[in-house]
Amino acid sequence: MSQIIAMEYAEDRLRLVDQRRLPGSYEFFECRTYRDCAFAIKDMVVRGAPAIGAAAAYGAALAASEFSSLGAAEFGPAMRVALDELRRARPTAVNLSWAVDRMACALDKAIAGGTGPGRTLYERLKAEADAILADETARSERLSEHGNALIPDGAAILTHCNTGSLAVPGPGTALGMIKAAHRAGKGVSVYADETRPRLQGARLTAWELDREGVPVTLIADSVAATLMRDGKIGLVVVGADRIAANGDAANKIGTFMLSVLAARYGVPFYVAAPVSTIDFACPSGDAIEIEERTADEVTTIEGVRVAPDGIHVYNPAFDVTPAEYITAIVTERGVLRPPFAEAIAALRATPGAGEGVL
Amino acid sequence: MSQIIAMEYAEDRLRLVDQRRLPGSYEFFECRTYRDCAFAIKDMVVRGAPAIGAAAAYGAALAASEFSSLGAAEFGPAMRVALDELRRARPTAVNLSWAVDRMACALDKAIAGGTGPGRTLYERLKAEADAILADETARSERLSEHGNALIPDGAAILTHCNTGSLAVPGPGTALGMIKAAHRAGKGVSVYADETRPRLQGARLTAWELDREGVPVTLIADSVAATLMRDGKIGLVVVGADRIAANGDAANKIGTFMLSVLAARYGVPFYVAAPVSTIDFACPSGDAIEIEERTADEVTTIEGVRVAPDGIHVYNPAFDVTPAEYITAIVTERGVLRPPFAEAIAALRATPGAGEGVL
Repeated sequence: MSQIIAMEYAEDRLRLVDQRRLPGSYEFFECRTYRDCAFAIKDMVVRGAPAIGAAAAYGAALAASEFSSLGAAEFGPAMRVALDELRRARPTAVNLSWAVDRMACALDKAIAGGTGPGRTLYERLKAEADAILADETARSERLSEHGNALIPDGAAILTHCNTGSLAVPGPGTALGMIKAAHRAGKGVSVYADETRPRLQGARLTAWELDREGVPVTLIADSVAATLMRDGKIGLVVVGADRIAANGDAANKIGTFMLSVLAARYGVPFYVAAPVSTIDFACPSGDAIEIEERTADEVTTIEGVRVAPDGIHVYNPAFDVTPAEYITAIVTERGVLRPPFAEAIAALRATPGAGEGVL
Repeated sequence: MSQIIAMEYAEDRLRLVDQRRLPGSYEFFECRTYRDCAFAIKDMVVRGAPAIGAAAAYGAALAASEFSSLGAAEFGPAMRVALDELRRARPTAVNLSWAVDRMACALDKAIAGGTGPGRTLYERLKAEADAILADETARSERLSEHGNALIPDGAAILTHCNTGSLAVPGPGTALGMIKAAHRAGKGVSVYADETRPRLQGARLTAWELDREGVPVTLIADSVAATLMRDGKIGLVVVGADRIAANGDAANKIGTFMLSVLAARYGVPFYVAAPVSTIDFACPSGDAIEIEERTADEVTTIEGVRVAPDGIHVYNPAFDVTPAEYITAIVTERGVLRPPFAEAIAALRATPGAGEGVL
C-alpha cells in the first residue's frame, strides 16, 4: 500500500488524519478556519513537531482567507490575533512558533509590497504553507534515504514510539528509514515497542506499518531484552526530541533502556532526526530537562482505570541516551558517526546548516 | 494498615478477595460449593500458585459437605468428579494438582479408617485444607524474614509483577520481604513496575502496598533504566515461576531486562521464591519452555482496543534471568548465594528439602 498522507490541503481546506481516533477508526478531520487548525493542534488531532508546524502554516493561510473582506486597518490586528492563537496551541513545539513566524514574515512582506486583504494575499500565504510542507517532506525523504543505506537486507528492526508519516510530512524519520528499506525490496521486518504510557507504538506505528505493507510485530516494551539477547534484532532505530552537541539524545521514555540492551548485546543503535533537532547550544544530555507528565497517563488507559486512585506515579516523558551507546545519527544532511562532538561541530560549520531549522 | 488476608474460611464458606475487580473495587467472592471454588480458580478471582492450591483444598472440603447425605457407594464417585473438576480448573499450576492430591489422600485415609460421609469427614478434610493454608502462610513468613535481612535501612526497592498476599497466603515472596522490612521500621520505599501486558504491578502491587502503608511509586516498565542509572534504586527484588538447578530463573516478562540493567549499574538483584519453585531436574534456563499468550493481552486493555485489529503480536508470558545476574535467591529455608548450582545441590541434599513441595 502507498504511503500515508496525513495532511492534505485542497479546495481551501486542510484535511488531517485524526490521530485521536487511530487505530479504532481512520477518519479525516477537516479544518475550514484557522480556529479549526488551532483546535486540531491543541487536541492532538495532529501531532509530531514538523506536522504541527505545517498545520499551523495552513491555519495562517486560512485566517487570511477568513479576513479577506476586512479593510486594511482591521485586517492586520485580526491576523495578529489569529497567528497568536495558532502559536499558543501547543506550548513547547519549536517548529510551531518557527512556522508561524515564517508565515508572519510572508504576510508582512506581501503587505509591504502593496498586496491588501483578498484572494491574492491568501494565495501568497497558501503558497508559503505549501513550501513549508514541501520542505519538510523533502527533508524527511532525504533523511530516509541516508538511513536506508545503513539497513542490511532482511534486517529485523526494533523501533520505539511513532516517527513516521503521522508525525512528519513525508515518510518520517526512524520509520522513514525503515519504509525506504522496505520500498527498496530489502525484505525487512519490524518489532514495534508498544511504548508505554501513551502507546504510540501500538496505536500509531503498528497501524502505519501494517497499512503500508511492512511486516510488523507488536511487543510490550520489556520484551525487547530477550529478543536482543537471542540475536533476533539486527538493528535498533529511534527518533529524537533533542540532541546535545556531544551526541547525547533525548527521546521517548524507554529509548535509553533499549540503548543499554543494544550495547550489551552488540546490536547497532541508530538515532534518526532532522538537523533542527540538534541543539548546538546544549553541551550534553545532563543539560536537557526532562518533562514529567501527569499520573493519569499511567493510571488510566483510554479512560479506563488500571491503578488505584491517588497512587503516586513517576511519569517522565523522555529519557536521555548517552552518545557512547549510539552507533550513528541519521540526518537529512547525511549520517553522523562518532565522535559525535566533532561530527556535530563540523555540521554546524558547513554551509546549509541553517536549512534544518524547521 | 494490617496485612491483606486474601483468603478466609469460616462458617462453611471460603471468602476470597475478588482480584478481577481490583483496584477499582475491593470485594469478596464467596464460595459455598466446590463448583464456586473451581469457578473462582478458572476465572482468576484467585491467582498465584500457592493461593490456588489452598483454594482448591477448601473446595475439596466443601464437596465432602455437599455430598455428606449420600450413601457410601455414591459418595466416592461424586468426590472423584469434584476433585477432578478442581484439578482441571487451571491447566499448569503445579500447586493445584499437588493440593488436590493431598486432599484425595486425606479422604482415602479417613474412609479407610472407617469414617463415612458426614460432618466428621467434612471436618477432617477442612482440617487438612487449614493445614495446607497454614503451611503456606508459615513458609511465606519465613521467606520474608530471611529476605528482610538483605534489605538495608531506607532502601528504595524496585519490584515487578505481584508477589504479595494476593498471590500467596501470608505476606508473599518478593513483596513479603519488602513488607517485613517495612514492618521492621526500616523506612523503605518501593518503585512498582506496572508490568505490561497484564498490569499486575499497577492493578495489584500498587494497591496492596498502598493499603498496607508501604510508600509506593508506580512507573511504566521502561522507566526503571533511568532510575537505576541515576542511583535511585538500592536493590531489585522479584519472584520466580521456575528456577533451574544452576540458578537461572524464569519469571514474569520484563524481569530479564531489569537484571541486565541491575548488572550494568551495580544494583543488587534478588529473586525470592519458595523451594518448591526450584526444578532440580531442570539443568538451566535453556530448558525452560516459555509460554506464549494471546495477542489480545497486548492489543486490548480492560476490553478497550489499543492496537489495530489483526496485528501480529509476540507475547511471551515469561523470560529467563541468567544466574550470573542474580545476587542471591531467597527461600523459606534461607538465602542461597552463588555459585547457585552448588547451593541448590546442597539444599536438595539436606533433610527438609521436601517440605517446600507446595
